[in-house]
Amino acid sequence: MLEKQEIPQLKSMSKGELHSLCDELRGRIIDTVMNNGGHLASNLGMVELTVALHYVFDFPSDKIIFDVGHQCYSHKLLSGRASKFNTLRKFGGLSGFPKREESEYDCYNTGHAGTSISAALGIAKARDIKDENFNVIAVIGDGSFSNGLVYEAFNGVSEMNTNILIILNDNRMSISPTVGTMHEYLEKLSSESELSAKKRRHETIFERFGLSYDGVYDGNDLDCMIEKLKEVKEKLKTRPVILHVLTKKGKGYSYCEENPQETHGISASKQHHKEYSEVLGSTLTALAQKDKRIIAVTAAMTPSVGLSEFFKKYPERSIDAGICEGHAAVVCAALATQGMKPYYAVYSTFLQRAFDEVLVDICSQNLPVTMCIDRAGISGTDGETHQGAFDLSYLSLVPNLTVAVPKDVAEFKKMLEASVGFNYPLAIRYPKDGLCNFSSEDEKCIFGKWEVLREGKDAAILACGERMISLAMKSAEAASHKGVEVSVINARFVKPLDTQLLTSLEQKNIVTLEDNALIGGFGSSIDSFFSRSGKIIKNFAYPDIFIPHGGIAELTAEYGISVESVINYLLSDAIR
Amino acid sequence: MLEKQEIPQLKSMSKGELHSLCDELRGRIIDTVMNNGGHLASNLGMVELTVALHYVFDFPSDKIIFDVGHQCYSHKLLSGRASKFNTLRKFGGLSGFPKREESEYDCYNTGHAGTSISAALGIAKARDIKDENFNVIAVIGDGSFSNGLVYEAFNGVSEMNTNILIILNDNRMSISPTVGTMHEYLEKLSSESELSAKKRRHETIFERFGLSYDGVYDGNDLDCMIEKLKEVKEKLKTRPVILHVLTKKGKGYSYCEENPQETHGISASKQHHKEYSEVLGSTLTALAQKDKRIIAVTAAMTPSVGLSEFFKKYPERSIDAGICEGHAAVVCAALATQGMKPYYAVYSTFLQRAFDEVLVDICSQNLPVTMCIDRAGISGTDGETHQGAFDLSYLSLVPNLTVAVPKDVAEFKKMLEASVGFNYPLAIRYPKDGLCNFSSEDEKCIFGKWEVLREGKDAAILACGERMISLAMKSAEAASHKGVEVSVINARFVKPLDTQLLTSLEQKNIVTLEDNALIGGFGSSIDSFFSRSGKIIKNFAYPDIFIPHGGIAELTAEYGISVESVINYLLSDAIR
Repeated sequence: MLEKQEIPQLKSMSKGELHSLCDELRGRIIDTVMNNGGHLASNLGMVELTVALHYVFDFPSDKIIFDVGHQCYSHKLLSGRASKFNTLRKFGGLSGFPKREESEYDCYNTGHAGTSISAALGIAKARDIKDENFNVIAVIGDGSFSNGLVYEAFNGVSEMNTNILIILNDNRMSISPTVGTMHEYLEKLSSESELSAKKRRHETIFERFGLSYDGVYDGNDLDCMIEKLKEVKEKLKTRPVILHVLTKKGKGYSYCEENPQETHGISASKQHHKEYSEVLGSTLTALAQKDKRIIAVTAAMTPSVGLSEFFKKYPERSIDAGICEGHAAVVCAALATQGMKPYYAVYSTFLQRAFDEVLVDICSQNLPVTMCIDRAGISGTDGETHQGAFDLSYLSLVPNLTVAVPKDVAEFKKMLEASVGFNYPLAIRYPKDGLCNFSSEDEKCIFGKWEVLREGKDAAILACGERMISLAMKSAEAASHKGVEVSVINARFVKPLDTQLLTSLEQKNIVTLEDNALIGGFGSSIDSFFSRSGKIIKNFAYPDIFIPHGGIAELTAEYGISVESVINYLLSDAIR
Repeated sequence: MLEKQEIPQLKSMSKGELHSLCDELRGRIIDTVMNNGGHLASNLGMVELTVALHYVFDFPSDKIIFDVGHQCYSHKLLSGRASKFNTLRKFGGLSGFPKREESEYDCYNTGHAGTSISAALGIAKARDIKDENFNVIAVIGDGSFSNGLVYEAFNGVSEMNTNILIILNDNRMSISPTVGTMHEYLEKLSSESELSAKKRRHETIFERFGLSYDGVYDGNDLDCMIEKLKEVKEKLKTRPVILHVLTKKGKGYSYCEENPQETHGISASKQHHKEYSEVLGSTLTALAQKDKRIIAVTAAMTPSVGLSEFFKKYPERSIDAGICEGHAAVVCAALATQGMKPYYAVYSTFLQRAFDEVLVDICSQNLPVTMCIDRAGISGTDGETHQGAFDLSYLSLVPNLTVAVPKDVAEFKKMLEASVGFNYPLAIRYPKDGLCNFSSEDEKCIFGKWEVLREGKDAAILACGERMISLAMKSAEAASHKGVEVSVINARFVKPLDTQLLTSLEQKNIVTLEDNALIGGFGSSIDSFFSRSGKIIKNFAYPDIFIPHGGIAELTAEYGISVESVINYLLSDAIR
């Protein structure tokens, strides 16, 4: 049916045809994700609910916001994007997240957790002011329900004074199983509902916030969903409603149903490299054996950041804060005030949510919290909202913070070992894959000290992180064959700079390389350091844009960071 | 009693003596705040509760965290700081907020709302791991209770599995009256409590989160508070407890009781200047008359940011989001997707809380939200957590965002007028006081274009914001008397830079001036722009530290930004 019409006419379909449509959607999702990578389990769970939504509501006049947004594949397939669905997550192809630029059926871009209810309230408020008439729906998983933004939006329900439909898609999982008191409460609600049908003894927490609560229903039962949505569509005319449905992650694909955590995200790459997260896990677990102060903190990402083993071995020194990056940062700061040594493992893009808490709670108190920042630099196929291209910028501006960028997994391990005795705030940022292994004579990693990897009189390349060191070494080697001799320096501490080494540099030409935006990042610090020196500095860094989805090599090259462009610069007239 | 002993021995005092102590504290607070400025109404409301806490608990072994922290004056007076209390908020004197560096009685520094419960959980968790034995107390106002961090902490209660005491100090106010569904719920709880004493029909929302709830009690009744705290201290041995008390802002000082909003913060300065917030209010109110798309959004700061009049005149186009900076930013983004024109007025330091939402929701969607950023630059006597010294840095790194810095209130007005037709994300940052008035021949303010205020061949000063333009003009004038001729350029758009003007600059010597940290700020952008030019650039900006409390002129001079230092540089050998 998806092949016949770009936008299937669901409203004229029979129940039987709708069920077949669900099967077809499921097949397309499995095929595409297996080829392209992407989010599998959550999208399989959302098929019936999405079909029911498209059957009952009128998109794009009605508006739907998918929280986080990775569960929108069926919606994309039903809204004119089936023929392009094979380009999902490819450079230049369909995004794996809602994108206003892509379709009028996507009204609000998402990527980070918890924004959907605030966004729905804003859209509905605008509708009311303009005296328009359409429905606004937020679809949000129970994982996102731990996030503080959701509560801020609940608290705003009376002030905003508008009607929206919130669909709580409860599958008992974030990427890892959902934690927290709210999750326990949702479980209790589900069991109460099963026990006593619609006759609940107490008002729910949602009713306390002024919402009409209806639940719990089977979100994978298409007929039930259609009936329910028709009902709430009526109710929505007079008040805000929350509909609580249970769906099964991986529904309809047994391997997925049995392994929802492993099949949350599927990688297109079949190669396996050593990952930085594995090194974090094994190193921290070993260090924690000797040092009882060490405690690991994550925000609903325990396996992805490599800490499953640590959590199993030291449950009393493990905290999964839920999707609560700000709360996690404050907890780390507080633990450190009492002499504990917290390691907060988090993705670069999600730490943005804790910017203020990192600045005020951790760093203005100058507390020994170590942030282990994964997926830093371009992270690839998830696109704009997931690239880790800003952390060197938003962390460099924070006083008291040391920012480290290991050149390979071996150096990462050394940095972690050295961090135990380091009594100040520390951020270590690294990509997912550890592809390189640069031999090094350094026995230890001395904080604040860089490393000269290669010497040459014509120019000095200052590079940080394995992708950039690799690029620098290849470029220097190639330039050498043409008679241009270039130093390569492992600028493994972006903050503070190794000013002693910088001051001693005799080359007039300096080149900086970083896997980060130029503004406020490493290159910009070097520009400021040399602002009165008369040196000629060329910065290779990402331009001032949001970098879209695509392969890492494709994107770095597209945005000017490649061996070719560095060699071209080194061999140009600029270097003389 | 405060004079006799540095730390009054409350536990050996009679009830009568404790009551006298309350009177004495109240007197000291009123006297000091009237002289030095500071937070008056909230501190007067906290006197009895604080005395009761010190009577029942054992500080500093027991730990207390004051949310936001401005209500800690009685605590400071009771913990060895009475003799220095006359230095409150003075440069080098006592901070107006809790400070670990100041006393072992302050265990956790605060300043931004909502961190106290997360911090208490972290401290209690460390206690449990180390098998120590003390009580941990978070004192939090109902205003902070709208903040998402509070909910993230509630959600973490089961995961953290530790016992803390939360005292909800409900005075029905943030700086402005508290808004939101939670506030309405708290009011309902209070009235239920009065109606039915301890026999409430339903579980409270807090009990749903696994806390033992006890309330509502009169927090200004010393004897009642002592009894209650003794009770909860017992209960705390087995579970986390929330004690809900009502206090009266301004208690014991009738002018304050009647005007809690006006006496939340008292300014030491008796002068009245035109404030930027007034210009925002009058201009936006006028513009909204003609343009129905204009909508004003604040985060519990309506009067402080100058929008009381707007809110009164256009209630349907006014949103007070509560202390929910992130939610407010998402609501603005969503409103803009529907063709509305939102103006989000917020303090520089508090916008840090919405960093991710500004980046992802507003700017990656390239939506026409205007952020009016008040108290930018050094804001003075509130200290580290309130200086607006980072916004140029954390905003410059955000793609799609235009960052404007008006040179005076007249230019601010022009920028606001021009912003109505500007269809992209915009930030305008400004200090509290509008002290200057630079005449200008510019009829209109063209976005991205700078203004030459003075011409000279020896150097070019690029300055942004009225404090810096003023400094630049005075320095240029003085240098001219010594034969050094200096251009002064009003760099009123920090992003994008006016690259046309920059490229045309013939002076080899460039000086940048900004009321912001150097790293990632304006000067750093100029350094990068000229990194391959061989120009000699001197940046005047704040060093890489957290700037403490003090007078604005004191602090700018202390950190190297003064007419003297600029003149010295202009007349030095560097400029030749």
